[in-house]
Formats: sequence, structure tokens, C-alpha cells
Amino acid sequence: MSRTESAGTAAAVTASADLFQDELHASVCDPVLDTMNFLNEVTHRYPHAISFAPGRPYDGFFDTEQIFVHMRRYLDHLVETGCSSGEIRDALFQYGPTSGRIRDLIADSLLKDEGIDVPPESIVVTVGCQEAMFLTLRALIPGPDDVLLVSSPCYVGITGAAGLLDIGLTAVAERPDGFSCDDLETALLVERDRGRRPRAFYVVPDHSNPSGTTMPLRTRHELLDLAARHDFLILEDSPYRLVSPGRQLPTLKSLDRERRVVHLGSYSKTLFPGARLGFAVADQIVADRRGGSGLLADELAKIKSMVTVNTSPLSQAVVAGMLLASDGRPSQLNTETSAHYEQAMHATLRRLDACFPDDVRAGLGVRWNTPSGGFFLAVDVPFTADNAALTRSAEEFGVIWTPMSYFYPQGGGERTLRLSVSYLTQADIAEGIDRLAGFITDQAAGSH
Amino acid sequence: MSRTESAGTAAAVTASADLFQDELHASVCDPVLDTMNFLNEVTHRYPHAISFAPGRPYDGFFDTEQIFVHMRRYLDHLVETGCSSGEIRDALFQYGPTSGRIRDLIADSLLKDEGIDVPPESIVVTVGCQEAMFLTLRALIPGPDDVLLVSSPCYVGITGAAGLLDIGLTAVAERPDGFSCDDLETALLVERDRGRRPRAFYVVPDHSNPSGTTMPLRTRHELLDLAARHDFLILEDSPYRLVSPGRQLPTLKSLDRERRVVHLGSYSKTLFPGARLGFAVADQIVADRRGGSGLLADELAKIKSMVTVNTSPLSQAVVAGMLLASDGRPSQLNTETSAHYEQAMHATLRRLDACFPDDVRAGLGVRWNTPSGGFFLAVDVPFTADNAALTRSAEEFGVIWTPMSYFYPQGGGERTLRLSVSYLTQADIAEGIDRLAGFITDQAAGSH
Repeated sequence: MSRTESAGTAAAVTASADLFQDELHASVCDPVLDTMNFLNEVTHRYPHAISFAPGRPYDGFFDTEQIFVHMRRYLDHLVETGCSSGEIRDALFQYGPTSGRIRDLIADSLLKDEGIDVPPESIVVTVGCQEAMFLTLRALIPGPDDVLLVSSPCYVGITGAAGLLDIGLTAVAERPDGFSCDDLETALLVERDRGRRPRAFYVVPDHSNPSGTTMPLRTRHELLDLAARHDFLILEDSPYRLVSPGRQLPTLKSLDRERRVVHLGSYSKTLFPGARLGFAVADQIVADRRGGSGLLADELAKIKSMVTVNTSPLSQAVVAGMLLASDGRPSQLNTETSAHYEQAMHATLRRLDACFPDDVRAGLGVRWNTPSGGFFLAVDVPFTADNAALTRSAEEFGVIWTPMSYFYPQGGGERTLRLSVSYLTQADIAEGIDRLAGFITDQAAGSH
Repeated sequence: MSRTESAGTAAAVTASADLFQDELHASVCDPVLDTMNFLNEVTHRYPHAISFAPGRPYDGFFDTEQIFVHMRRYLDHLVETGCSSGEIRDALFQYGPTSGRIRDLIADSLLKDEGIDVPPESIVVTVGCQEAMFLTLRALIPGPDDVLLVSSPCYVGITGAAGLLDIGLTAVAERPDGFSCDDLETALLVERDRGRRPRAFYVVPDHSNPSGTTMPLRTRHELLDLAARHDFLILEDSPYRLVSPGRQLPTLKSLDRERRVVHLGSYSKTLFPGARLGFAVADQIVADRRGGSGLLADELAKIKSMVTVNTSPLSQAVVAGMLLASDGRPSQLNTETSAHYEQAMHATLRRLDACFPDDVRAGLGVRWNTPSGGFFLAVDVPFTADNAALTRSAEEFGVIWTPMSYFYPQGGGERTLRLSVSYLTQADIAEGIDRLAGFITDQAAGSH
């Protein structure tokens, strides 16, 4: 039945329709979803526009047959490590451990590629990083007086998960060059004065989504000190590190000597989004309600058992096959991909430079940052970059971007665009930036 | 690092350990998890005991190579339906639609196998039925005065999900022959008198977990009438229908003329648990906050986007391959499996009859029901069937079962055991029931 037919049938039913009038659970993540829906609609309405909106990975290096190869490699590995054919069958077909089946391979890879040295027991394998965020927030933010601090602009996955759980947020605005510990400390003290308890701080330290900023090493150390001094946890989300060029700064988790950091892991950029495979590293010691203690990871697994039971062993098998193929170094699977993203970012920056020579740039009041990696950059413009501007940009200039204001949970970013460079070819980037320059120049002139 | 070493390291850290003393989010699902943990511990401690505890499917009919065959079949299907190789690659590797990619195949199968006639748009594909429960509760139970009614004893997945969301439960106790609409109506009216709003009623109509009861056809019609009269929704969970012998009664959803039923679907018993694939059929019309209306399924998808983003296309591909292999009738893939479960249930009942002849049974005060299918039956015993009794049963008699009290969210079932017959061979069933009879007889005599 087509969507139109089904809507027709639906409209005819009124008895149960009345039932839910205004009675669904209101959700503070709705604004996020509404804006994303608007973006999807614009994309759908102007299919020939070049879009700098989607943050999805480039798919030119994916190869369908490799799914079979990776899964087979993991099954061979199970044979080599002494599993019987019945055990292998059950590993794929049956329910599996809630915390996951490939924690040893993930721990090995974290040590080799990220400098994170944790026992497999502190890892929970999740259905994408999104579930890791959800479980972590559910465990760590207990009451209405507890707040989650977020660096802002902020990835919508964390604000959405907080919204589902009715968790209060406090946004700490980034400065043009990124996050500042002073601003975080101020926000912390303000919250305390209000009688609220800041429990955790969420941040993407490397090539942040959406702003593209990277936290300097000194700030990483300052942040860890601040967390120790003010007794909060850091939620570190860093999906772009291993698909970015050059040597990366150390993860917060690798610098963490006091178990202050919960590291939220994603394979969506380094391996592939379709695996829906992420994880949380949660080696914190927590008290249980019987006077004992255990790992935070075990608490997350308990919650997971009531959300998704366990992560599909099929996805785990394919990811494990990829980890085995790279001897635990997914970074090495991504040399080509990283080079692709690096070239895309360079092409974008070069074209912006060409379209907006220094004097033009200064005259217009246009600025952008120069991220050292990742998928995103931020462009400041001399007008309000809202849905109306986006629609005009798509319709009249054939170019789509994301209003940065979408990523500010408590306002901000009204005159900034987010550009994502991950999904486009070099030719589309060049043509797209030309179109964007046309739009920006025209919009700035107020000729519309 | 071994578990012991890691615990040792963990114990040495006290700074962050203090942080979370009594401050994790308390969860009413903890009692459920605590009891399940106890069961796991007993199983671990007495590895030679025969266990009637696990509700997992029999795995003798699984075949590892079939995973590759099913996935290939779905990819071939995509080719046949006109997808390009790039589209197929992206279907596996990229993010996918939040509501799922195989809704048309599921809708086709629901019509053929379950008599449920719904458009694909009313289906949301989820990470197992557990996620479907979680999303449905999150959407439908908005506030602290709203309650979820459950038939009790009750599947722990739903009580656990309600616990995570801090949702109030009201248990409606089953009678020995199953659920009664009169009791449900009484409970509804009591809740209303207390100023609370009963929003939905959760039930497993066929071969219930844990009690094994099946709702008669007349009761199904009565329940639908009651839902219309008292304006609540029915959450129908029925994972055992298509692995049970003979003709099944119609699903509540297939009898539903007023969109009163949200059907919660699972492939864990009919296909395999490792797919972690379930779905919700939610064709209810709901008002949105902009004065429009849409399908409840779309609201569930919005919530899902903040829990797991989308269900792995790898799992969807394998399940789709199985649905295609059976031309949309998973029941036909399960004729052997259904026969296996039927024989297991018969063997269990026959052996109980043999161990407890009528006069012995009456003298002891032992009774059991005779489920027409499914995995479970309930045995009433003349003593408290608690953790202490379970431990003694495992240690001294080498047989494990589940205390039925685990499944009563508000007390009950103290003198009943749940037996699961799904996972054992006929020989183990015979030996296990002999041991159980020994234990029951001894425990009833009070000789311990």
C-alpha cells in the first residue's frame, strides 16, 4: 500500500485518533528532530542542489562482498581460538552476552590505536555510539537537580538522548578557537549556586561535530584537572580521530589517571555506519545498592538488557573481522579514507579562499575556521542563517548547508553555517562552494 | 587482563569510586535483574544440574552457513527489484532509514502468517522486541499519573523497560486458567478512583511467558471491547505463536477494528535471537504538537533515532533473506522446530504424570497446567519456591527451575515454579523431571 493510500485510510479512523490528542510523552528532543526534518525536506525538495549537510561517511571505498569476507574471517578466528562448530553456531544465532562478545578485540584495538589501556571488562558493546550515550546518561544523571554540561554547539545525538530521559542540559558556549575550561568552570559554579549538581560534561575533543574545532593538549590536561577538582565525569566522544590526517592528539581517556573519563566509541566513521556498532569504556568504580561495588560498565549492561538485550552478533562478527584484518588498527584500514577526507577539506578551504579573497572577505564580514581534520567546518556570515535563508540558498543557488543554530541547545550560532565535506566529490565541492559564495554575497547585499 | 586482575586494579582506585556512592540512577528494574543474576549464579555454580530455566530457543536446527545464504538471497532480491550495485552497497554499509528497510517484507509476512493487514508505514523495525517495548512505553505513558497495566505473572522485559522509564505498573493477577477481563476492569476502575490514568495493557495472549496460558477467542473479543469502552491501548506480544503446534487463535491485532492494539513483534523464536530483530506495528493516529496528525509508528521512529538511530541493515538483510526463503511465511520455516517444542512439552507433561500419579499428586498438593504450545509451564508446589529452595534443588537434586515469584511485579507466585522446555533434549527432560519429582517430594515432606 502506498503512503498516500495509508494516510487516506488513517484519516478515516477517528475513534482512536482522539485517544492520543496531546497525550503522547512530550519530548525536549522534538526541536532537534523538527529542524532535522526541515533539512530533510529541503534536501528532498531540491534534489539537484549540492548538499554540504549530511555528516555521513564517503562510501566510495565500501565493497559489498567484503561483508562476507569479514564475517568469514571472524568465524575462522573462532575456529583458531578453539571454538567448536556448535559454539560458533550459537555465537551467531543465539542470544549473546549483554556486554558484547568482542570486547577483547576492542580492548586490543583501543590500546594499539588510541593509547587507551583498559581491561575488556570495562567495555560495553552497544548499538552504535547513540546507545552508549543513552545508557551512560541513564546511569549517571539520577535526578531532576542533576545536570549534564555540554560544549555548545553540540552534537544532536547527546541532546536528543538527554531529551528522551528528561535530563537538564547546560550549554557551555565554545569560543571561536574552541572550548574553554574557564567558561566550563564558570558554568559549573553558576549551576551549583542554583542548587544543581553538574554530573558530567560531554565533549567531542577532536574535529568536533559541528564546529570542527580540536581541543589543544594543554586544554585536555586542564579539563582533566577541572573534573578532578569539581568532581564530575567527562564523556568523550571522538568518532573522527582515526579518519583524520596526521598524528592525533592523545584521547582524554588515554590521559585519564583517575577514571574521570567515560569514552564513547563509534565505528560508524572508521568502519561503517551499517554495523550499528559502538561501545562505552566505563571503568569507573561505582557503589551498588547492596553495599558492594562494581564497574560502571556493568551498570550500563544492566540498563542495556532492558533496552536492546544485546548487540547483534552478526554486526559484532563483521566488525571483529575488520579489526582482525587490521591487526587491531582500524586506522590502517583508513589511510585511503583519511586521505580522501583531508583532500575534501583542503579543496573546500582552497575554494573558499579563491571565492573570498582577503579584501572581499573582510568587506563582507565572512569568516571560516580551518579544521585539521574531521568532516565539518564553520562559516560565519553577515546575515541570519535560518531556515528561510537555507530555503533560498537551495532554491535560488542550488546549495544546501546546515544552520549552526540547530546545534545550540540554548540559543546561539544564528549567523553561522555548518559545512560537511565528507560525502562529496572534489568536483561537487568546487561547484558547491562557488554556488555558496554566490548565495552568501547576494544574501549579504540584502538584495532579496 | 583477567577479571580478577581488573577487579584488583579497580579496588585500588578510590578517588573516583567515592564519586558515585549511592548516586547512580536508581532503577525499579533492579529487583528483576537481581533475581535473574541469582539464577545465573546458581546455573554457573551447578553446571551439571539440568536446567529448566532458560527460555532460549533450541539451537539444533541452526546452521552457521545459512547466515551467508540468507544475506546473499536478500542482495539478489535487491538486484531483482532494480537496485544498482551502489544502492546495494549503501543499503548495507550506510546509515539507513530509522523505521527500517524491510518493512514491506514484514508487512507481507504479517498478512500471510498472522492475518494482520497493515501498511508497511505502520511498522517500525527495532533492535529486538525489547526495543519495541521500550519505544512504545516511552511514547504512550506520558506522566507520573499514567499507569501501565500488565497481566501478572509477567514477562520481565516489559517490567524492566517500564522500570528504566520510571513508569508506574499495575499488575492484574491471572487466574489459574489465565487472564480475566473482569479482573482487568476492576483494576482499571480502582486506578481511576485513585486519580490515575490506565493508558495501556500489556499481555502475551498465546502460550504466555511465564505461565504458558493462552487467551480464549471469546476473551480476546471481550478485551478489545473493554479497551474501546475504557479508552486504553493493548500491547500484544506473541513470540511463541508460530513455533507452536496446530492452528493458532487469531492475534488480537488481526481482530482489531479500532486500532486499539499495538502489536510487538519478535523474530527471536521464529527465526533466531542473534538477529536482534523485532518490530512494532503502530497504526494508531496521533496528534502532533503542531496541530497535525501522524502515525504512532512515526513517533516511535523519532524516539528510536535517539536510542539506536536505526536497526543494523546486516540483521535486516539476513532476516529479509529468511522471509524471502519462506515466501513471507516464517511459520513454514518452523515446522520441524514447532514439532520439536511440541514433543518437548508432551514429554515433560507425560513424565510429570508418571512421577506424580493422581493420588500422589492430590496427596502432595502438586498441580501443573497443560499449555497447548510455547516454551513454558507452571507447576504449583506445596512449599515456598524461593531462592533457598532453588539452591537446594540445584545442589542436592541437580535440577534448576525459575521461581514464578520472579515474574510478579507486585508479589505472588510464591508456591509456583516455571519450567521451560525449549532448550532441552528429550533425555534431559526425562531425567530432569525425575530429579524435580525427587526434590518436590522431599521438600514437601519438610525433611530438609
